[in-house]
Amino acid sequence: MQKIKKVITYGTFDLLHWGHVNLLKRARELGNHLTVGLSSDEFNKLKHKDSYHEYAERKLILESIRYVDNIIMESNWNQKISDIKKYDIGLFVIGDDWKGEFDFLKEYCEVVYLTRTEGISTSHIKSSVFNK
Amino acid sequence: MQKIKKVITYGTFDLLHWGHVNLLKRARELGNHLTVGLSSDEFNKLKHKDSYHEYAERKLILESIRYVDNIIMESNWNQKISDIKKYDIGLFVIGDDWKGEFDFLKEYCEVVYLTRTEGISTSHIKSSVFNK
Repeated sequence: MQKIKKVITYGTFDLLHWGHVNLLKRARELGNHLTVGLSSDEFNKLKHKDSYHEYAERKLILESIRYVDNIIMESNWNQKISDIKKYDIGLFVIGDDWKGEFDFLKEYCEVVYLTRTEGISTSHIKSSVFNK
Repeated sequence: MQKIKKVITYGTFDLLHWGHVNLLKRARELGNHLTVGLSSDEFNKLKHKDSYHEYAERKLILESIRYVDNIIMESNWNQKISDIKKYDIGLFVIGDDWKGEFDFLKEYCEVVYLTRTEGISTSHIKSSVFNK
């Protein structure tokens, strides 16, 4: 029987682009089950991050991605350790713009920072769509 | 053995949103294999439609959608009949903003116009993202 290695990542995943898709695909390939902690609208407000699509809409899109096996709500900064325990996570993955920030999770599972895709981000889309 | 019913739809699928995902999911459920004819950048220009993401990027995102089995390039208005024959398509599906426009394909396969999801479109995203 194949050993299950469960991976987790977190984010807002607004205006889904190929940078997101790349990250999800690579995260999934580092294990064989991917959980995404999807930021709630309230948590986005706390982070001073305004998303175009609401949570239910972002969730619907994320559910359609073949690399995603499970979606949970991320409501605050402090739930990661309990998520890792609750969902039996072996690997925490996040973009390397967060490099070092989540090393404290190494006590609970592996931690990998993935290179972000060059030249694309939701902020970039937001600031240029209108001007294109 | 289950009979394979192949479905086809066409579009630009720029800035993927839950309206797209809804349509793809429902289209896939009307059969058991979904081909998407994805408009090339050149064809979009012909249609006076400017996409934010380039073809390769739109394709990468579409490939990640679990309801999509095959992606082909749509390069002109006239390829639909030959696509239907070539890929052994049983059902052509498109949003009902095109109602009636593709009835001429009924000679070759079933034609279904699906209700569009209310309140969302790529044009709507483009015109409001910057102002939000």
